[in-house]
Amino acid sequence: MENSGKVLLELFLVFAGGKVMAEISERLRQPGVLGELLAGVLLGPSLLGLVRADELTLGLAEIGAIFLLFTVGLETKPRDLLEVGWTAVLVGSLGVILPFILGLWYMKALGYSSIESIFVGAAMVATSVGITARVLADLGALSTRAARVILAAAVLDDILGLLVLAVVSSLSTGQVHYMQLGIVAAEAVAFALVMIFLGSKVIGRFHPHVEKLRARNSAFILSIILCLGLSLASVYIGMAAIIGAFLTGLALADHSDRWKLQENAHPVSEFLAPFFFVLLGVQVNVQTFAKPSLIGLASVICVLAIVGKLIGCGLGCLHLGLKDALRVGIGMVPRGEVGLIVAGVGLSLHTISDAVYSIVLVMSIVTTLVAPPFLRMVLPPPSAPSSFASEGSFQGDRVSPDVLAGK
Amino acid sequence: MENSGKVLLELFLVFAGGKVMAEISERLRQPGVLGELLAGVLLGPSLLGLVRADELTLGLAEIGAIFLLFTVGLETKPRDLLEVGWTAVLVGSLGVILPFILGLWYMKALGYSSIESIFVGAAMVATSVGITARVLADLGALSTRAARVILAAAVLDDILGLLVLAVVSSLSTGQVHYMQLGIVAAEAVAFALVMIFLGSKVIGRFHPHVEKLRARNSAFILSIILCLGLSLASVYIGMAAIIGAFLTGLALADHSDRWKLQENAHPVSEFLAPFFFVLLGVQVNVQTFAKPSLIGLASVICVLAIVGKLIGCGLGCLHLGLKDALRVGIGMVPRGEVGLIVAGVGLSLHTISDAVYSIVLVMSIVTTLVAPPFLRMVLPPPSAPSSFASEGSFQGDRVSPDVLAGK
Repeated sequence: MENSGKVLLELFLVFAGGKVMAEISERLRQPGVLGELLAGVLLGPSLLGLVRADELTLGLAEIGAIFLLFTVGLETKPRDLLEVGWTAVLVGSLGVILPFILGLWYMKALGYSSIESIFVGAAMVATSVGITARVLADLGALSTRAARVILAAAVLDDILGLLVLAVVSSLSTGQVHYMQLGIVAAEAVAFALVMIFLGSKVIGRFHPHVEKLRARNSAFILSIILCLGLSLASVYIGMAAIIGAFLTGLALADHSDRWKLQENAHPVSEFLAPFFFVLLGVQVNVQTFAKPSLIGLASVICVLAIVGKLIGCGLGCLHLGLKDALRVGIGMVPRGEVGLIVAGVGLSLHTISDAVYSIVLVMSIVTTLVAPPFLRMVLPPPSAPSSFASEGSFQGDRVSPDVLAGK
Repeated sequence: MENSGKVLLELFLVFAGGKVMAEISERLRQPGVLGELLAGVLLGPSLLGLVRADELTLGLAEIGAIFLLFTVGLETKPRDLLEVGWTAVLVGSLGVILPFILGLWYMKALGYSSIESIFVGAAMVATSVGITARVLADLGALSTRAARVILAAAVLDDILGLLVLAVVSSLSTGQVHYMQLGIVAAEAVAFALVMIFLGSKVIGRFHPHVEKLRARNSAFILSIILCLGLSLASVYIGMAAIIGAFLTGLALADHSDRWKLQENAHPVSEFLAPFFFVLLGVQVNVQTFAKPSLIGLASVICVLAIVGKLIGCGLGCLHLGLKDALRVGIGMVPRGEVGLIVAGVGLSLHTISDAVYSIVLVMSIVTTLVAPPFLRMVLPPPSAPSSFASEGSFQGDRVSPDVLAGK
């Protein structure tokens, strides 16, 4: 009983705290996700100390991110991604190369060792698409061209990030296994391509069988099993679970209307996704920012991390116009937890120092917190008549805030 | 990354395992929930050892039970419960008194001490309504008269169970604090009555404010906050969290259509509730059944636990006809985890022996596993034209199994 109370209290604080702060954030014309991140910082150990990052809350955060990207995948048809395919390849590649070079160059210029500089560069590579996906979804902008480019580029970005991580890990142990590297790359690329090109057709084949099942709402149940299974597969390959979840959603997108998948997945995501964002905040140690000696260096790395993606990704899709280039550039800025994995490997191999790890940490936090407000600014407002409400995508509960406010 | 894989594997096994077994169970004309319970036994430490009852899985189980009962509450209007009020009082009281007397009498007759006999009797008192609620929901029978009696009686049963627990706890420490007991009882009764009589009206008052919120789907978000908060409140009072969740659903039921609460809560419950049932199974230690010396005693206690509720609760609503009396009687049989709390208190106070604890454990498992098939047998089949599809209750995804099977 006592334990039940503790668990419930933590859940209540995370969910209610996140949602209250999201509401405040929206009223200040900021994205809701910013409020949830800040709620986490507030509730976490470094300030109020009411919520810990424990097995349960981190588990819920992980499921929340998976459901969020699954839902985003369901709203994205494979052909929408393929249409922007080459643009996404450019955006993804330039957005990986530029931040890497900038980070590497700056650290080298300051006199750090090559290997430490490479690690910092590598940690600046990978975009965490969760934050951007949420802002896009909140504004109902998932079917805009910029959103498609971002989502397609994020898949490529994750594969490239995986390879960069593999290379820097091998570098620090002294030897690069080209063979293994090739296999990892081939697996990741094959997984993504199969999901994008064949997933939808394979699932279509199973359609008659699904309708024969006895369970209530069996298509939704099966889609969850598929989503969890393929997220797991993508972790085994070495990719992020959320990329597997996104690709599963993508493969199911063409069947989503018939099986009412969006209507079902949306509420689950609405309940669980806040755990992901609040927990990102809970894991922020405010004291990281309190080291005067690092502030200068960290600020420059943050600027380079932002500029690197902004220019790298922006250049990759400049042919779509300056507005879309800006949207894509800002959308690819948040690094979330991905850079920390790279830095964590460096730390555990003793190739980077605690100080450098802290800098990467600050870079992750700052890029994550800075992107949402700017992204919201450059995206069309939700009430404006734009292209994103077309194609009959699920808009069930998305009453525009302005309508709700009685404007 | 590695941890992410472990978490996902466990989630995948619980959800996919539970749902595959549920499907098999349905094909054998058994309730799906039985399959989920057995999947848990199979996956748990005593057989395959693939899933553990850890912080995350138990947390998800708890949230699953809360969402399940919240959803059930949303489908039950307060006036539906009040209509069967006096019947439920009879059913609840007799269903508590008879098992208690039977257990106490039998243990005394065997020569056990008074205090140990009282503990066994007390452990046989409380119904765990989750199992029954799930079977009723699966068959679309939540708005039948029997279902209403069961749900109303379950609230009372939980309050009585709380008092019994308080009394036996005090007995074993030597002194009964009548004052404290009175306060606990008053709090619990007041909480339930306020939720049933006033909850709906109070929430109605807030309606204009809810519509002013900026958040997407704000009514659903608020309903979750309310549900978590009041589940927490009910734990603090000493009641089960699921009773708080049920009462929250009840208070929101009249507003459910306008705010699309059922449509939103259903999928969340469909994803999370299986964790509750599979985890109930995971926590079953098969070896408990392998003590020959206890089999005789345990069997008699199981029979008494079943007969006690069947006759006690059945008598309480015999005026509704034999069929409904049988439905209510069987529906109140499952003890789930509630009896274990009582027995656990006894064990920790050294008032009952390990052997007696095992007997209570067996009783909990057997009553939980036995009830669903029989309940399904006595309820009208989901495809039959009966009263339960009336009143415009949410039937969105509930295609009858026979329709799905193409019959």
